[in-house]
Amino acid sequence: MMISVLDQRRFATALFDRLRAESLDAPGVTRDPYGTGEQRAHAMIAEAGAAMGLEIGRDAAANLYLTRPGRDRARPAIILGSHLDSVPHGGNFDGAAGVVAGLVVLRALAALGIAPACDIVVMGIRAEESVWFQVSYIGSRGALGSLPDGALAAKRIDTGRSLADHIAACGGDPAALAAGARHLDPARIAAYLELHIEQAPSLIEAGCPVGICTGIPGNVRLPHARIIGEHDHVGLPRRFRHDAAMAGADLAMELDRLWQEHEAADIPMACTIGRFHTDAAAHGLTIVPGLFHFSLDLRAYDPAVLAALEVALDEAIARVAARRRVTIEPGPRARAAVGPVDPALRVALSHAASALGVRARPLGSPASHDAAAFAEAGVKMGMVFVRNANGSHNPQEAMEIDDFLAGCAVMAQTVAEMVG
Amino acid sequence: MMISVLDQRRFATALFDRLRAESLDAPGVTRDPYGTGEQRAHAMIAEAGAAMGLEIGRDAAANLYLTRPGRDRARPAIILGSHLDSVPHGGNFDGAAGVVAGLVVLRALAALGIAPACDIVVMGIRAEESVWFQVSYIGSRGALGSLPDGALAAKRIDTGRSLADHIAACGGDPAALAAGARHLDPARIAAYLELHIEQAPSLIEAGCPVGICTGIPGNVRLPHARIIGEHDHVGLPRRFRHDAAMAGADLAMELDRLWQEHEAADIPMACTIGRFHTDAAAHGLTIVPGLFHFSLDLRAYDPAVLAALEVALDEAIARVAARRRVTIEPGPRARAAVGPVDPALRVALSHAASALGVRARPLGSPASHDAAAFAEAGVKMGMVFVRNANGSHNPQEAMEIDDFLAGCAVMAQTVAEMVG
Repeated sequence: MMISVLDQRRFATALFDRLRAESLDAPGVTRDPYGTGEQRAHAMIAEAGAAMGLEIGRDAAANLYLTRPGRDRARPAIILGSHLDSVPHGGNFDGAAGVVAGLVVLRALAALGIAPACDIVVMGIRAEESVWFQVSYIGSRGALGSLPDGALAAKRIDTGRSLADHIAACGGDPAALAAGARHLDPARIAAYLELHIEQAPSLIEAGCPVGICTGIPGNVRLPHARIIGEHDHVGLPRRFRHDAAMAGADLAMELDRLWQEHEAADIPMACTIGRFHTDAAAHGLTIVPGLFHFSLDLRAYDPAVLAALEVALDEAIARVAARRRVTIEPGPRARAAVGPVDPALRVALSHAASALGVRARPLGSPASHDAAAFAEAGVKMGMVFVRNANGSHNPQEAMEIDDFLAGCAVMAQTVAEMVG
Repeated sequence: MMISVLDQRRFATALFDRLRAESLDAPGVTRDPYGTGEQRAHAMIAEAGAAMGLEIGRDAAANLYLTRPGRDRARPAIILGSHLDSVPHGGNFDGAAGVVAGLVVLRALAALGIAPACDIVVMGIRAEESVWFQVSYIGSRGALGSLPDGALAAKRIDTGRSLADHIAACGGDPAALAAGARHLDPARIAAYLELHIEQAPSLIEAGCPVGICTGIPGNVRLPHARIIGEHDHVGLPRRFRHDAAMAGADLAMELDRLWQEHEAADIPMACTIGRFHTDAAAHGLTIVPGLFHFSLDLRAYDPAVLAALEVALDEAIARVAARRRVTIEPGPRARAAVGPVDPALRVALSHAASALGVRARPLGSPASHDAAAFAEAGVKMGMVFVRNANGSHNPQEAMEIDDFLAGCAVMAQTVAEMVG
């Protein structure tokens, strides 16, 4: 029995609409990790999975697992996952689309009458957005037993409560996580596949509904960097100043030039200074800023490029500090390794797109994804991107439902060939 | 009967210590205009004036007048003034030193047995620091009937209450100010003299305890400028970004280069971007900033230079907005005219320093002062600066009491020659 596109569209649209309605926080949606917004999304997806007759499970990090049992349950499983949290006032599709896609794929396989050889698991992952706890891939790393040291003590930026507290409040088991327990054994996972909206308009530019991921960037982050100069009077001559904000601007322009040079050389990277601000308790119209705060995310697709970027960053910091007579404290650093895509999965996804007549192009992921945590753990990983005109992490993100269904079809075809 | 230096030092030190104790707000002092801190300073100075037998008066802007009557009260008076407010967590001397100096000068004249020809008035001025209401010279302009339109509706940045409300709460009469009433008639003022700590270490560099002011800079200000870009995902390629913070950094560096060029050409000016920040409600580690806020103070000593700077500012804004694909909204502009020093007063102050053996050098004021409001009203104006190693608008401001007394002596000598 074939399932109609119309029926899949109706199913996905209804789920997306409910997800949006449950997490509306104008402008956009807020699905705060281990908080109200994410909890509602998890409850809704679990309910949808139950209605489809899937097995429902959870782990110590309170991730959600919806399983279609395979003919041989001892065989390594295929995971179709993504995250259900969002940035504050974010878009409805960043993350959630990948979880809905997992359900759509299972529906398609069921409609094709496929009894899969192995378990196929739709995974609703917790807390991917690092803006909240300043830690990346919390849910996926929690499941894989690879949470970084100190992560459980990280405070959520708005509540001030620790990750451990938040996890416990959502039914998880932070003590088990602290003891290094893992729910997922990489050796027992055949593949991890994730569908995600593209966070840049490259597919729009290229006229392709779907992109096949070639790699996930690694990053080095300074979540809490500071510049310490001297607060001074508005009339102070230039030669006497220790202006922390001018030093911030100078460093930002140094990093922007670095990016321009890489762009000119066609070496993909990105540099984002998301927080960039004088001190609200001390700044004023007539005060030379003596204190400045910033965050930094530097990312690249090649481990060697990323390492060189970090060296260049430290050189720029030293240069600007000397030139501007200030102290620049980079603060603690967070890192994520470059996430390689499994070559065979990439080829299989491309072949599936060709077989289905879906226009697809290879695409370096602009952003980090849970898939990188699986790749880091040694799991074969592949990703499918769906075109989106307006970027993500904002309420204007846009995804045509037919593009989404094309991406799901590419995944379903690929999975069918693996499990048929 | 001569008054001893020891006695003047004791008098001034005791007053400064009490002023500090009454407005302590660690770190530094806070004498919020038309608020608790400034009120206490006014009460204390009025008390000191009463103890000296001076006439005590106030005006609609709640400025304080302590008058030593002259032999001929119909003659235009000499005003020795400065302000009693401070920036938040500021230093004890910025402003208050000029008021204490007025009292020290009156004590010196009395000790010399001088019965002045005209009234000599020590004026404790309100609300000079524009950081609070984003309006400059409120007290002096209020006294001179030259408050700018809309000033009374300006909200204090911390309380959110209007200037009119604040004035009324301190016993002033905002309705009279709104009607354009003036307490001081410029034609009835022979001279306005102000002592102020230097806000830069130029006198320290030069090894002079005292500076004789050559002019007060005019300024153009953008108290509430904004840059509107687009919030986007951390991974977005550079060519797609509309990064409001990078645009802010770019503009800051353009203005800094402009200043460097003026410095190289020995044309005095200053550029201060006191508030410079991403939007606290929307920024985050993994979000390309779509909104940025800044303030700007551009100042110069020559009206033609100031006008040219404003043209250059507007050109830089247009250039950066185009280059960074953002909208830059400069917002409302505030202006203060260049304040010329009366040449005869400047010569008289220099001669007095020579006669007293006080090392003094000519000095362009780094900052704006109430003296500029008097100059703008057509009053002959002069200023004396006292050296200070650490700038002002910060708790580390430093003024040796003997340097202060040297400045007072220069003023007393000058006034004695005018009224003897």
